Amino acid sequence: MREGGHASLLRLGANESAFGPSPKAVAAMAAELPHLSWYGDPESYDLRCAIAVRHGCGVEHVSVGSGIDDLMGLAVRAFMSPGSVALTTAGTYPTFAYHVTGFGGRLDVVPYRNDGRLDLDALAARAQATQPAIVYLANPDNPSGTMLPAGAVVEFFEALPRQSLLLLDEAYADFVDSADLFPELISGRLIRVRTFSKAYGMAGARVGYAVTSPRNVVTFQKIRLHYGVNRNAQIGALASLQDDEFRDYVVGAVAAGRDEYYGLARSLGLGALRSLTNFVCIDFGDAGRATAVMNALLAHGVFVRKPAAPPLDRYVRISVGAPQERAEFGVRLRRVLEELPS
Amino acid sequence: MREGGHASLLRLGANESAFGPSPKAVAAMAAELPHLSWYGDPESYDLRCAIAVRHGCGVEHVSVGSGIDDLMGLAVRAFMSPGSVALTTAGTYPTFAYHVTGFGGRLDVVPYRNDGRLDLDALAARAQATQPAIVYLANPDNPSGTMLPAGAVVEFFEALPRQSLLLLDEAYADFVDSADLFPELISGRLIRVRTFSKAYGMAGARVGYAVTSPRNVVTFQKIRLHYGVNRNAQIGALASLQDDEFRDYVVGAVAAGRDEYYGLARSLGLGALRSLTNFVCIDFGDAGRATAVMNALLAHGVFVRKPAAPPLDRYVRISVGAPQERAEFGVRLRRVLEELPS
Repeated sequence: MREGGHASLLRLGANESAFGPSPKAVAAMAAELPHLSWYGDPESYDLRCAIAVRHGCGVEHVSVGSGIDDLMGLAVRAFMSPGSVALTTAGTYPTFAYHVTGFGGRLDVVPYRNDGRLDLDALAARAQATQPAIVYLANPDNPSGTMLPAGAVVEFFEALPRQSLLLLDEAYADFVDSADLFPELISGRLIRVRTFSKAYGMAGARVGYAVTSPRNVVTFQKIRLHYGVNRNAQIGALASLQDDEFRDYVVGAVAAGRDEYYGLARSLGLGALRSLTNFVCIDFGDAGRATAVMNALLAHGVFVRKPAAPPLDRYVRISVGAPQERAEFGVRLRRVLEELPS
Repeated sequence: MREGGHASLLRLGANESAFGPSPKAVAAMAAELPHLSWYGDPESYDLRCAIAVRHGCGVEHVSVGSGIDDLMGLAVRAFMSPGSVALTTAGTYPTFAYHVTGFGGRLDVVPYRNDGRLDLDALAARAQATQPAIVYLANPDNPSGTMLPAGAVVEFFEALPRQSLLLLDEAYADFVDSADLFPELISGRLIRVRTFSKAYGMAGARVGYAVTSPRNVVTFQKIRLHYGVNRNAQIGALASLQDDEFRDYVVGAVAAGRDEYYGLARSLGLGALRSLTNFVCIDFGDAGRATAVMNALLAHGVFVRKPAAPPLDRYVRISVGAPQERAEFGVRLRRVLEELPS
């Protein structure tokens, strides 16, 4: 973006919320800015209590970090040693894999299914074969946007080897009806991670959390940056949790935006993956065409991304923008498709 | 503090700035809070450019992190392997040592000199004996507050084994006349780290930086959290760098506060270490007495800390508060000393 310098850049590539943070969170953070000279509570105690209430668990089950990326790094550092194996899906959210490589682990991958879903059968079989220390699963998934039924994930979790830990990335869970989510289960073999970056619109603040066993929380406590979480992020996250009305508004607005993208794709004779997130993958038929469309969109000031690995490499992923951004995206996509040789 | 619940707690234990962030930084951050749904620039490019100008170096020499604690973790992770040795001073700022232990390194320590200064001769001799991967030096130092002359540190750096990297923690450098600081030197064997937590009053924001060789910057780039720095912290830090007037005001106000603490100590017949930071160590004669004073102060709602390791364990460390806090601290310290058996 720095290199492009477009006057009217459409920022639809990083799944940032087009609806901003909760006004109540903004007000709470603004009021506390003059106290930014104070370190945040190293225990994130008030925030952890509010999260525990939300999940119906004890505060000892909750660890707060500087976003899911930070928490995934802690999990890899804590539970893998050089040479041990981690299992993930080729082309899913990549930060887990970066951490595994960065800490000297060995990465094992299974491809997506052709319908764009994670392949639980292949992952389970592979886990039995390689006995990974950690299995990573994003549900809903990024970059596909697809979601697996809770029951299938529970079965998958139970089928994993006893020595394998499931790292369940629920970054987009706030967009899903809670009845459809993995049950509130506390286990030393399960680390579920959530974020305030997406539905709560606080990506720039870096704040997320893990729900897991007290023992895992204590393990994280030993290796995490003691004062790592921004004080203002703690304040904003706490205020966000108290503003369900805002979250419901965002979730509704995002669902409407997804429907608009489906309609746009349909009107252009294109398919799209059914998404439970704040983005939609539109199908351009093959990887070369999808790359050409993405690059042409970039040249028209539309920042989008696309999955790199097959079979998802035929899609371009577009974050749900505000209504005006979506309209403008439609205009520019049509222009791009007219200009591109078919 | 959560456990104490005092109505009028004096927060003088964590060397937080009593003078807050720059009003210009507060205004810049407040204006951007509605955009907190955007990730910060993963390259911290604008901030790094401003830092590079400040240090008269290129942007490729600057790495931004979530505070010095984060950057020290990167240095340990990048340059130590399990079993390799790191050298520090027993009782100095502890986070470096935590990282060394956390990443499986072996910690070697040398005591402070009896006058409360770091012992460069002992550190240099020890480095020759054990060939550490990293030598940690805080200048000005925490918790002593003392400062070594730049020339002595340059000599020390040159005397280190060729395989040793000097991690120079300059968290409190903004309180020192720049002519008295270690020269602007770029070397692959030198990582100097600075923070916006102290003079700039942004401890809660988590933002600091390293100045080192482009190669080390690239190494950090490979292992750091790509989106780890809070967007608002980037904005506030950048605005702070453009507000020299505020920094000069804080530095002057802190110097006045230190003088007041020296005077308070003198009036009580106590010594104090000469400090170049935003805190002062007052000498209570021995470790038992210092601990008793600290605990009694805590019981009177004064949050202070003390160095744990000899020979500094006879001191209590008090952060420079605002004028009213300093006056109140004097009142409570006198009360404590009257109540304590001598």
